[in-house]
Amino acid sequence: MPGLRGVIRGSQEPLERDWTEASLIADRRDLHRHPETGWTEFRTTAIVVERLRALGYSPLLGADVCQAASRRGVPDPEALDAAWSRARAEGVDGDLLETMRGGMTGAVALRRWGRGPVVALRFDMDALDLMESEAATHRPLREGFASVHKGICHACGHDGHVAIGLGVAHALARSKHSLQGTLKLIFQPAEEGVRGARSIVEAGHLDDVDIVVGCHVLTGWALGELAPGLGGYAATRKLDVLFRGEAAHAGGMPEGGRNALLAAATAAVHLHALPRHHAGFTRVHVGRLTAGSGRNVIPEQALLVAEVRGETMELCAFMAERALAVVTAAASMYGCTVEVRPMGEAGTARSDPDLARRIEHVASAVGDFHCFAVDAVGGSEDFTEMMLHVQERGGMAAYVGLGADLTGVHRDDADRSRVLAAHTSTFDFDERVLGGAVSLLSGLVVDVLGGVSPRSERSDVDT
Amino acid sequence: MPGLRGVIRGSQEPLERDWTEASLIADRRDLHRHPETGWTEFRTTAIVVERLRALGYSPLLGADVCQAASRRGVPDPEALDAAWSRARAEGVDGDLLETMRGGMTGAVALRRWGRGPVVALRFDMDALDLMESEAATHRPLREGFASVHKGICHACGHDGHVAIGLGVAHALARSKHSLQGTLKLIFQPAEEGVRGARSIVEAGHLDDVDIVVGCHVLTGWALGELAPGLGGYAATRKLDVLFRGEAAHAGGMPEGGRNALLAAATAAVHLHALPRHHAGFTRVHVGRLTAGSGRNVIPEQALLVAEVRGETMELCAFMAERALAVVTAAASMYGCTVEVRPMGEAGTARSDPDLARRIEHVASAVGDFHCFAVDAVGGSEDFTEMMLHVQERGGMAAYVGLGADLTGVHRDDADRSRVLAAHTSTFDFDERVLGGAVSLLSGLVVDVLGGVSPRSERSDVDT
Amino acid sequence: MPGLRGVIRGSQEPLERDWTEASLIADRRDLHRHPETGWTEFRTTAIVVERLRALGYSPLLGADVCQAASRRGVPDPEALDAAWSRARAEGVDGDLLETMRGGMTGAVALRRWGRGPVVALRFDMDALDLMESEAATHRPLREGFASVHKGICHACGHDGHVAIGLGVAHALARSKHSLQGTLKLIFQPAEEGVRGARSIVEAGHLDDVDIVVGCHVLTGWALGELAPGLGGYAATRKLDVLFRGEAAHAGGMPEGGRNALLAAATAAVHLHALPRHHAGFTRVHVGRLTAGSGRNVIPEQALLVAEVRGETMELCAFMAERALAVVTAAASMYGCTVEVRPMGEAGTARSDPDLARRIEHVASAVGDFHCFAVDAVGGSEDFTEMMLHVQERGGMAAYVGLGADLTGVHRDDADRSRVLAAHTSTFDFDERVLGGAVSLLSGLVVDVLGGVSPRSERSDVDT
Amino acid sequence: MPGLRGVIRGSQEPLERDWTEASLIADRRDLHRHPETGWTEFRTTAIVVERLRALGYSPLLGADVCQAASRRGVPDPEALDAAWSRARAEGVDGDLLETMRGGMTGAVALRRWGRGPVVALRFDMDALDLMESEAATHRPLREGFASVHKGICHACGHDGHVAIGLGVAHALARSKHSLQGTLKLIFQPAEEGVRGARSIVEAGHLDDVDIVVGCHVLTGWALGELAPGLGGYAATRKLDVLFRGEAAHAGGMPEGGRNALLAAATAAVHLHALPRHHAGFTRVHVGRLTAGSGRNVIPEQALLVAEVRGETMELCAFMAERALAVVTAAASMYGCTVEVRPMGEAGTARSDPDLARRIEHVASAVGDFHCFAVDAVGGSEDFTEMMLHVQERGGMAAYVGLGADLTGVHRDDADRSRVLAAHTSTFDFDERVLGGAVSLLSGLVVDVLGGVSPRSERSDVDT
Repeated sequence: MPGLRGVIRGSQEPLERDWTEASLIADRRDLHRHPETGWTEFRTTAIVVERLRALGYSPLLGADVCQAASRRGVPDPEALDAAWSRARAEGVDGDLLETMRGGMTGAVALRRWGRGPVVALRFDMDALDLMESEAATHRPLREGFASVHKGICHACGHDGHVAIGLGVAHALARSKHSLQGTLKLIFQPAEEGVRGARSIVEAGHLDDVDIVVGCHVLTGWALGELAPGLGGYAATRKLDVLFRGEAAHAGGMPEGGRNALLAAATAAVHLHALPRHHAGFTRVHVGRLTAGSGRNVIPEQALLVAEVRGETMELCAFMAERALAVVTAAASMYGCTVEVRPMGEAGTARSDPDLARRIEHVASAVGDFHCFAVDAVGGSEDFTEMMLHVQERGGMAAYVGLGADLTGVHRDDADRSRVLAAHTSTFDFDERVLGGAVSLLSGLVVDVLGGVSPRSERSDVDT
Repeated sequence: MPGLRGVIRGSQEPLERDWTEASLIADRRDLHRHPETGWTEFRTTAIVVERLRALGYSPLLGADVCQAASRRGVPDPEALDAAWSRARAEGVDGDLLETMRGGMTGAVALRRWGRGPVVALRFDMDALDLMESEAATHRPLREGFASVHKGICHACGHDGHVAIGLGVAHALARSKHSLQGTLKLIFQPAEEGVRGARSIVEAGHLDDVDIVVGCHVLTGWALGELAPGLGGYAATRKLDVLFRGEAAHAGGMPEGGRNALLAAATAAVHLHALPRHHAGFTRVHVGRLTAGSGRNVIPEQALLVAEVRGETMELCAFMAERALAVVTAAASMYGCTVEVRPMGEAGTARSDPDLARRIEHVASAVGDFHCFAVDAVGGSEDFTEMMLHVQERGGMAAYVGLGADLTGVHRDDADRSRVLAAHTSTFDFDERVLGGAVSLLSGLVVDVLGGVSPRSERSDVDT
Repeated sequence: MPGLRGVIRGSQEPLERDWTEASLIADRRDLHRHPETGWTEFRTTAIVVERLRALGYSPLLGADVCQAASRRGVPDPEALDAAWSRARAEGVDGDLLETMRGGMTGAVALRRWGRGPVVALRFDMDALDLMESEAATHRPLREGFASVHKGICHACGHDGHVAIGLGVAHALARSKHSLQGTLKLIFQPAEEGVRGARSIVEAGHLDDVDIVVGCHVLTGWALGELAPGLGGYAATRKLDVLFRGEAAHAGGMPEGGRNALLAAATAAVHLHALPRHHAGFTRVHVGRLTAGSGRNVIPEQALLVAEVRGETMELCAFMAERALAVVTAAASMYGCTVEVRPMGEAGTARSDPDLARRIEHVASAVGDFHCFAVDAVGGSEDFTEMMLHVQERGGMAAYVGLGADLTGVHRDDADRSRVLAAHTSTFDFDERVLGGAVSLLSGLVVDVLGGVSPRSERSDVDT
Repeated sequence: MPGLRGVIRGSQEPLERDWTEASLIADRRDLHRHPETGWTEFRTTAIVVERLRALGYSPLLGADVCQAASRRGVPDPEALDAAWSRARAEGVDGDLLETMRGGMTGAVALRRWGRGPVVALRFDMDALDLMESEAATHRPLREGFASVHKGICHACGHDGHVAIGLGVAHALARSKHSLQGTLKLIFQPAEEGVRGARSIVEAGHLDDVDIVVGCHVLTGWALGELAPGLGGYAATRKLDVLFRGEAAHAGGMPEGGRNALLAAATAAVHLHALPRHHAGFTRVHVGRLTAGSGRNVIPEQALLVAEVRGETMELCAFMAERALAVVTAAASMYGCTVEVRPMGEAGTARSDPDLARRIEHVASAVGDFHCFAVDAVGGSEDFTEMMLHVQERGGMAAYVGLGADLTGVHRDDADRSRVLAAHTSTFDFDERVLGGAVSLLSGLVVDVLGGVSPRSERSDVDT
C-alpha cells in the first residue's frame, strides 16, 4: 500500500501514533504462533486484556462478555481443559485464566467521550483446526512465526484482526480529538463456526450501539483495495450429527451390530447430493467424519461435523430441513439412531450503503485505498448477527474488506467477488494491511464522533 | 468346571502347584485393569518378564523377540511414546522399558530338559481400542478390575491367556518329571489386527518347533467344553487406506479442493457392497473412518482402517484385489490420491487331527472336559502364521478353544461354531477356565516330553 | 387477456384475419392430442407443411431443413420406425413421410417482399416422453384433447408454439402492407434435449438473418404479462452414459460378472453430489436410468440419461468435466467400461435490449400487455444457438415469454423469475395467449419490415 | 456319452424306442428358437399338449394346472397380450390359446397302470429375458437354431428339459412292462424367478405323489457325470420394489419433485452392502433398475427387480428383512414412497439319500454314468417347493443334475459344486445328454413301478 500514511489528513489532527507497523506485525505474529480455536482463546484474550489495561481501558471479562447459555459449539470439557492447561503452561496469568473457566473467553472495552453516538468495532480472535503448511515456501515457517500448536492455525486472518483491534485501542486511547460519544471494542471469540456473535448480542452489548463495523483481511484482493460495505454473506446453520449403532465382531458376526460408520458415510454422500435450488445459491458440507474404533469391530458411533448455507434465510432453512431428512434416513438404513445438535448459526445481512459511503470517504482521507462494491459469495460470518441486531434498532452496520494479498496481483472485478481464499494450510496475508486498517477504523471513529465530516472539506467526493 | 482337578492323573505325579486359581485370577484381573494395545504391551511384558525371571527362566526380550521390520501396524511414534510414558508412570522398570523402545514388546522363554521334541506354547497379550462398558452389571466394574486405561479394554480374553501362560510357566518351572525335550513359552504382542505372529516367525522362533499350541477362551461355550483343534480361521489382510485431497473453503469455493472425506465415505460404502463369492465365505469391513478437520474446510485427508477376510487364501486375495479397485476408484471419483498400507495379515490353517486327539486325551486325564470338533467361522487369528510355519516343516500344530461362558448355558452344536462373541464392550469370561487351561497345557507338555503316553494306560480311549 | 384486439393499431392497417382464436385453439388441441417427440414430429411437420402450402408458401422439407450430421440425440432406428408407422397409420401423406425418413423433420418457409431485412421467427414442435395426467381435473382430458400417444405429451407448450407459427403464417400470407424484406418461419424439431437448433444453424438458415425471435408460453405468469427479452438460459450439455459390464448368475457366481447397474447407480448418486460452484448456479441431473435384464443376472448394461447446466459456458464446462470424472470412476469401481455420448448442447445468450424495447413497443400497440424484464433461471433453450449465431454476425435476437397461466393469479416479481413450471404431467396453459402471440409477432414483422416505426407515432413511449 | 445305450438292461425288457436322439435334439432346437418367458409359454405348452395327445395322454390344461391366485410374478396384461399375439402369429392353435388366456400355461399328464405308487417327473419350460449371443462362435447361431424372439433366450437349458419330458412321455406311452402305479408328468411354467412351482403345489398335483424327481442339465460337468441327488439350493425371495416420487423440471426447479431414481439407485447400492452373515451364505441382488422418463424431468417412478437368498430359510428371511429396511430408508431419504411386491419364493430342500441311491443304481443300469454327491451353491430352484411338499407327506424327492458341458473337460470335485454356469448369453449344452436323461428317468419310473428292484440283481452295489 504505497503511500499509506497512517494519519488522518485534512482538518483532523494526527492521532497519537506510538503503535507502529512493526508493533502491529509483531502482535500479529505472536498471535499467529499461538493460535487458539473458538472458546479456547485463553492466551489471546489474556494478551488483549493486558494490553487494553495498559492503555487505560477496563475491559469486561469472562461471564460479562458472552451470555454463557447462548454460546454454540463449546468444546467438550476435556478439550477445554487441555487448552486451558496449555495456556497456563504458556505463562498466562492464573487470575485471568480463572475468569475464563469453561471457555468464557473474549473481551469488551469501552471508551467514553461525553454524550454522542455509540460506535462498536468488532474483532474476531479464533483460529482453525487445520494443520499449517510445513512447506519451505510458507512464510510463517520461513520467518519463524508458524503455529506452535500442532493442528491449529490462523488460516483466516483473525490474528491480524486482533492486532488491528489492539492498534485501534492504542490509537484512540488518549485521543486529543474533542470527540462526543462512545467507542466499544468487541473482541469476539468463536467466529469460526459462527458460534460466538450471538452470545455477545444476547449479553446486550449491541443494544445501545448506533454504528457497528467489522473487518476482514482479504487475500485475493491487492493491498489497498477496499470493500467498504461487504454483503452477501450466506445464512448458515452448523450441525453436529451423532449416529449411534451397536458394536459386534466384524469377522465372527458381521450381521450383528448396527454400523454407525456406514450410516454416517451414507449421510455424508447424500447430504452433498441434496438438490440445488432455483431461488439462489445453497451450500452443504461435511467438514469432518469420525467413526468407529477397532479395525474388526462394527462401529457403534459416528460423528458428522456439518453445515448448510443459503443465499437467504429460507434457502438455509430449506437445506437444513432436507439435511435432517437425509441423516434420519441414513441412520434408519443402518438401524442406528441419530441426534442432530445445533452448533452455530448466522443470518444474512447487508452493509448500510450510507455507512459504506462514509467509510469510503474516510478511506480516501487516510490512505490510498481503492474502493469496490462487491458481495461475498458463499461465505458466512456471524458478524451478521450483530449487524442485524443493530439495524433492527435503527442503527447502521458495515463489514469492511481489506485487500491484503501477498501476490500483489490486482484482480479484475469478476474475480473480486470471491473474497475468501482463506482456510487453506498456506494462508498468509500482506501485513502492511494492518497499519492501513488501524488508520481507517480509527479515522472512522474520529469522523463519526468528532462532528466534523471529512466530506465538507473535500469537494471532489460526490459518490 | 465342577470337578476340575488341576492335577495330572494316572501314572503322572502331580505337577508342582503353588500357583492357585486365586493367583491366576489375580493375575488376570491386574492385566485386565491395565490393558495395552498391540506393540504397547510395555507393562504387560514387564510383568511377564519379572515373573518368568523369578521362576528361573531367562526370557528373551526386545529385539530378540520380534523381527522389527516384520512387525505390522506399529502405532505412530506419538502413540508409542504416550503408552511408554503411561507404563513408566505405572512403575515399570526403566531398564526393561528401554529394551522395549519403539514398541519392541513380547517375550520368549525356554526350558530345556535334555534332548527331545520342542513344544511351543503361544499366549497373546494385547487389548483392544474399545471403551469398556460402564454398565453397573458389568462384572469388571462391579468387582473393581475394570480398565483404568480409558478407551482400551481386554475384550478378547488375552488377559486370561497371559495369566494362563504364567501359570504354565509356574507349573513346569521346577518339574520333577523326567522330561526329555524343550518347552518354549511365547508371549506374543499385537495379535489384534494379526500384526505380531509373523514377526516372531521371521525371528526364527518357530524354526525348531515340533509342536506348537495356542489357546483361546471362548464365550458362547460352557465351562468345561473344549475344542481340542480349532480350525476354520479366515485368511485376512488388514489395510489402512489413506486418501489425500486438497483443502478449500467450503462456503466460498465449494468446487475448489478435493474432498478426501467423500472419497473415503464412498469407499466405505462400496467396500461393503463387494459381491459375495460362490466359493466360500468372505468378509470386508471398515472399522474406522476419520476424515477432515474444520467444519467449513474441504477435507484434505481421510483414513479408512479396514480389513478383508476369506475362507481360503484365494478368497482373501480376491477380496483384497477388489477392495483395491474400489478405493482407487473412490479416490479418483473425488480427485484424490490414495495409499493402501498393509497393516497385518494371517492365513488359514487347520489343527492337526493327531495332535487334537492327543490334547483330547490329556484333557480327559486332567479334568472333566467335553470335547467338540468345530471350526471357527469368520474370525481370524495370526497364530495361523505359526501353525503354517511349523506344519510346513513337518511339525504339528493345534489351536485349543476353552469354554468359559459366564452364563453357564450349554449351547447346541449349531451355535457352537460361533466361537467369537468377543470384541464387545461387555466382554467377560468365567475365570475358572484359567486353572483348567493351565492343567491342560502343562499336562500336554508333560505328556509330549515325558515319553509316557496317557493313552497306553487308558484302554477306553480309542477315538 | 381482456381487451386483446388481435389487430395492429395506430397507423397500421388491420392484418388479414381469417385465422381466429377458435382456429388457433383447434390447431393447438389437435397437436396436443398427437404429441411427437424430437426427430419424430412426422405428423406435426406434415400438418405444418400442408397448411403452409395452402397459404401459398413453399416450405423447405427433409434434408433441406436440418443438417443431418449435426442433429443430436436422434432416436434409434426402431423408435424412428415405430413413430413413422404411427404417423402413417394416422393418415400422414406417404410422399411427405418419405422426405422425413430417418427423422428429418421440421420445416422452413420464406416470404419475400422486395429488399430489406430478414426477420426469422422460430417455433419448436416436439413433445416430451412423459405420461400425461389422467386426473379428472386435467383439462385436456376433460375437454377431450388429451394425448392419444401413451407416454408422450405436450407438457412444455410446443403445441401452442406451432399453432402460433401457423397463425403468423396465415396473418402475413397475403399481407397488403407495403413491406420490405423477408420473413423466415422456422419450425424446429427436437428442442427438448436441446438437440435440434444447431442442425438448423449448421444448415445455414440463420446466416442471412438480421432479427431472430422465438417465443415460449409461460405458466406462472398471468395472461397478458410479457417478457419481451428473456435471458438467463443456462448453458447445457446432454449426455447419454452407457456402462458395459459382464453378466453372470447372481446366485451361483455373484463375484463373477461386472455389475453395470451398480456402476450406473453409483454414478447417479455421485453426479448429484458434484459440488456447488462459487461463481454461479449449476445443475446436474440424471433423468433416466435403465439397467439390467433378468432378476438373477448380473446386469451387463446400464444407461444414464443425464444433463449438466451452468449459468455460464465455463460453469457448464466445469460440470461436464467433473461429471466425466464421476462416471469414469464409477465404471472403474465396478470393473465396467463407460461411453459418454453427447446428445445435445446449448449455450447462454441474452436478448438484445433494443429489440426487446421494440417488441415492448409493438406489444403496447397490439394489445394489453404488461412487460417485465426478467431472466429465466435454470432452464435451457436451444434457441440460444440461433441467437448467438445471429448476434455474432451483427444481427439482433430476442426470446419472448408469453404469460398464459390458467390460474389467472398475478405473481410478484420475485416469483416471476421462475418461468418454467413446465414438464409436469398436468401442464396446461390459457389458450387465449395464442391470439395475442400471433398479433404480437405479426405486428413485430410488419413493424420491422414496414419502415414505419410505431415509436414515431407514440410520444408516450420512452422506455 | 459314449456307450449310452438308451435301454434298460438286465431283467428289464427294452422300452419302446421310437424317440431317437435326433428327434430329441430337433425338439430342443425348435424350443430354443422360440423361447418364451414365464407365464407366456403359449407355444411351448401347445407343443407339449399336442405331442402328449398324439401319444394318448389327456393332459390337463389352463386353470387345471396352476392355481391362478398362487402364481407369482405374472407379467402385466400388455406383455401377456404381446406374447399371446406372437404365439398366435406363430401358428398356435386358437382353442389351445384360449385355455391359456391370462398366462395360464403349463400342462400335467397322467398315465395309470393299476394300483401302486405315484411317481411325478417335473420339467420346467420357460426362458430368460436375456439377449442371446450373436457371436459367430455361438453354436445355436452357427447351426441355425438361435432365438428368433429378440431379447429372450433359453440360457438355462429348460428347452432341453421339455425335450426330455417329451421323450419320457414317448418312452412310457405304450410301455409293455407290467407296471403298477401312476406316472405324472408335470410341465411347469415360470421356474425362472421361482414363480411357478408353488401354484402347481397349491393346485394339489403333488398331494398324492410318492416320489417326485426333477432334473437339470449342468454345464461345468462333463457328459456322463451325474448328480443323483442335488441339494443346497438356497432359499430365496424375489421382490419388485417400486418407488414413487414427484416430477419437476430439473433445470428450473431442481429442489422440486421427489427423485425416485436417486432413491432406487441408493437402495441398489446399499442392498448390495447388506452385511454378510456368520451362519451361512447369503445373496442379495438387483437384477434390473428402471427409473425416470425425460432427461430434464425429476424422475417420479423407479423400479428395482431384486432378490435375496440364504443358505437356510432363516438366512433368507434375515436378508429380506434387512432389504426392506434399506429400501424403506432409501425412499424416505428422497421423500418417496415405496412398495415392495413379492414376485416369487422358494425354500431349501435336500434330495432323499435313499432315492438318490436308487437313481444312481438305475443310472448304472441304463448307461455309463459317473455319480457324484454334491450340492449346488448359491442357486435357487422352485422345484424345492414340490420336494418339500412331498417330503412333508412322507414321500421322497430328488433333484438330478445331468452333466452336459460342451467343452468335454472333466472338472475336479471342488469345481463341481458350482453347478450353474447358466444365465449367460452364450449358454449352450451337449445335446447328447438328452437321450441319456430320457433313459435314466424312464428307467427310474419302470424301476419304481415295476416291482423288480435292479438292486437285487447287482450284488456289487452296496453304497
